[in-house]
Amino acid sequence: MTTDSEFRLGQRLSAMRAAQPLIHNITNYVAMNIMANVLLAIGASPAMVHAPEEAAEFACIAAALTVNIGTLSKSWVEGMILAAEAAGKAGKPWVLDPVAAGATRYRVETARALIALRPTVIRGNASEILALHGLSGTGRGVDSTDTVAFAQDAARNLALDTGAIVAVTGAVDFVTDGTRGVHIANGHILMPRVTALGCSLTGVVGAFLAVDSDTFGATVAALTCFGVAGELAERGAAGPGSFAVRFLDVLAALRPDQLEDMARIERAQAWSA
Amino acid sequence: MTTDSEFRLGQRLSAMRAAQPLIHNITNYVAMNIMANVLLAIGASPAMVHAPEEAAEFACIAAALTVNIGTLSKSWVEGMILAAEAAGKAGKPWVLDPVAAGATRYRVETARALIALRPTVIRGNASEILALHGLSGTGRGVDSTDTVAFAQDAARNLALDTGAIVAVTGAVDFVTDGTRGVHIANGHILMPRVTALGCSLTGVVGAFLAVDSDTFGATVAALTCFGVAGELAERGAAGPGSFAVRFLDVLAALRPDQLEDMARIERAQAWSA
Amino acid sequence: MTTDSEFRLGQRLSAMRAAQPLIHNITNYVAMNIMANVLLAIGASPAMVHAPEEAAEFACIAAALTVNIGTLSKSWVEGMILAAEAAGKAGKPWVLDPVAAGATRYRVETARALIALRPTVIRGNASEILALHGLSGTGRGVDSTDTVAFAQDAARNLALDTGAIVAVTGAVDFVTDGTRGVHIANGHILMPRVTALGCSLTGVVGAFLAVDSDTFGATVAALTCFGVAGELAERGAAGPGSFAVRFLDVLAALRPDQLEDMARIERAQAWSA
Repeated sequence: MTTDSEFRLGQRLSAMRAAQPLIHNITNYVAMNIMANVLLAIGASPAMVHAPEEAAEFACIAAALTVNIGTLSKSWVEGMILAAEAAGKAGKPWVLDPVAAGATRYRVETARALIALRPTVIRGNASEILALHGLSGTGRGVDSTDTVAFAQDAARNLALDTGAIVAVTGAVDFVTDGTRGVHIANGHILMPRVTALGCSLTGVVGAFLAVDSDTFGATVAALTCFGVAGELAERGAAGPGSFAVRFLDVLAALRPDQLEDMARIERAQAWSA
Repeated sequence: MTTDSEFRLGQRLSAMRAAQPLIHNITNYVAMNIMANVLLAIGASPAMVHAPEEAAEFACIAAALTVNIGTLSKSWVEGMILAAEAAGKAGKPWVLDPVAAGATRYRVETARALIALRPTVIRGNASEILALHGLSGTGRGVDSTDTVAFAQDAARNLALDTGAIVAVTGAVDFVTDGTRGVHIANGHILMPRVTALGCSLTGVVGAFLAVDSDTFGATVAALTCFGVAGELAERGAAGPGSFAVRFLDVLAALRPDQLEDMARIERAQAWSA
Repeated sequence: MTTDSEFRLGQRLSAMRAAQPLIHNITNYVAMNIMANVLLAIGASPAMVHAPEEAAEFACIAAALTVNIGTLSKSWVEGMILAAEAAGKAGKPWVLDPVAAGATRYRVETARALIALRPTVIRGNASEILALHGLSGTGRGVDSTDTVAFAQDAARNLALDTGAIVAVTGAVDFVTDGTRGVHIANGHILMPRVTALGCSLTGVVGAFLAVDSDTFGATVAALTCFGVAGELAERGAAGPGSFAVRFLDVLAALRPDQLEDMARIERAQAWSA
């Protein structure tokens, strides 16, 4: 097991809170409220701004951008592209959350257009990363019977193709830059029972990226915070409703030393060819 | 009182959970988050997809569709119509939630266009059902001083006119297919103090329809689940905030035998001519 | 300290609840759900209606309108303007919430267009009021090192320029009609850690205005209710998640005598020239 100290988790959390970075989110309607509350709870400052008339201008004000394709429509896609272009030009990090990327042609086209703008980080579940991998150019068929293992290879290739850090989240998260990879075993099974927690995590990744030039380390720290908070929130929760409430309380109270103590990060084994 | 066993409530709940059906919702902005959380809590899989570019395609992937006119705009109405047409052609059940149907001309026109696409179920409060009944062709004036009783006749006629199951929800719910009718006396007065719980119920009706060819029985089961969960959630709630949290916990934990034991379903008396 | 009885706080709360006024809100996506829940909890009846096709018609049905520019787009701005014009013509009070008014050119233009329609009340934080003051014609540069004090002068001038009651909310709120001014020292530091509580307060101001021709007194009463509820909600809260839940419970249970007892309202000192 990797020593947690390598990722300076507590230090990263404290640095993010001290900066209270302004995070610009173009997200879906389901996530709007919980994502803003998650960002406030952990110590960042969220803003939701999507219109083509102002998305690029706002991306230059904010410290990081996140783009989530959960509830698309034409003018929103325009806003996403303008914001991602502006963030790229301004040297601001941005995170792509490819919700249900492979489900419809419209999502495929939108995801392809956004990937071409070179996100700093791509965060999705295994199916989404597999779908994106198919779009990124080197895709092979879904020829594995082991989804987790296969998503891992897809994540590596997607990272190599796009230059992004790729984070696959699930029971055990996987983060890779195409050469390195780590597993994060934190989290709780109630998390996917609360809608848009994954979308909210994308915001937290943005918050950690905003204050950290080590994009790999920042992504690992964000995912670990989220997973540890999920474990703490489960204690005393009676179901998904009270879990979600406790999750916000826990994020706000999370101590750097708690994060370090509870982190379960492991370096990935050598790649399969 | 009807024996609850007639509606196989526990069996229907278990069957829905086992299938974990994908429910496609085009709903209003207020309901987006709570509706998704309600569907996840009870055991279904929600997706919110509204754009004309993908709504029809997605309706064919999902097991059922729900359409809610709470916060309308032009492109959303287009998406609703495309999705409802696609669901109809694909033989997928779909539910119409006619929020504030009679309040503006725009809502009247939208509701009329959607009803013409033959929803499987229409779920609304008494005022909404009365407004829809006025639109459906056989409407008479609001000539009753007893709103509940009158909504019941309107519901029957709306069902006969449209071929839909009509569910009128309130202190006592009423469900009819135009010939049969049942009352469901479950629920709690705190429920209308939490916004968009009615909208969320529309999603639950979709979830039960998705796995059940008996649309009348499925609708009754969905409404009863919701009402019973409301009664259980009230225990220990200190107001509408904690009630909403407990409601999600209770939906996730609701046992089939609890549902059967607590159901208060009664067959409606013979129709007034 | 001003005697609370001057503002008839308890009486105003009771009158609003008795009327259960229909409040028409065009608000941002983040606020949609919590704002509706806050209005239901305190005893009003919320409706969210934004489309240009129906916004003006609905503004004439409702008892008051609120307009929030948090998540703008073209058709929404059209709806806002049509609704505000209709409310003005119909003699209905309306409240402007100028979220991040100075952040982008698009917000500056939208805020300017809305101010020209003469809102009854403008409610914002210090930065927003300072930004609006710059737009209203008499603006001077931000030449004060004391933001609170400066926002107070900006608020007075904005009130004189526009004819609106101006409410600046923060650790201590300030309300002015350009000649009078009061400070309200209620509230709790957890309130800005819950997203869209300020937006929700704008709705509550609308609810109090809906039943009260004394717009200054109604605004003071709304802000005081909100602050007192924040203090009561803090008791027993473990963080921002449980605080938000308790806040809704407390709003629903708030007694007129509690409101009177806990209010901390003070008349502002003579104006600086």
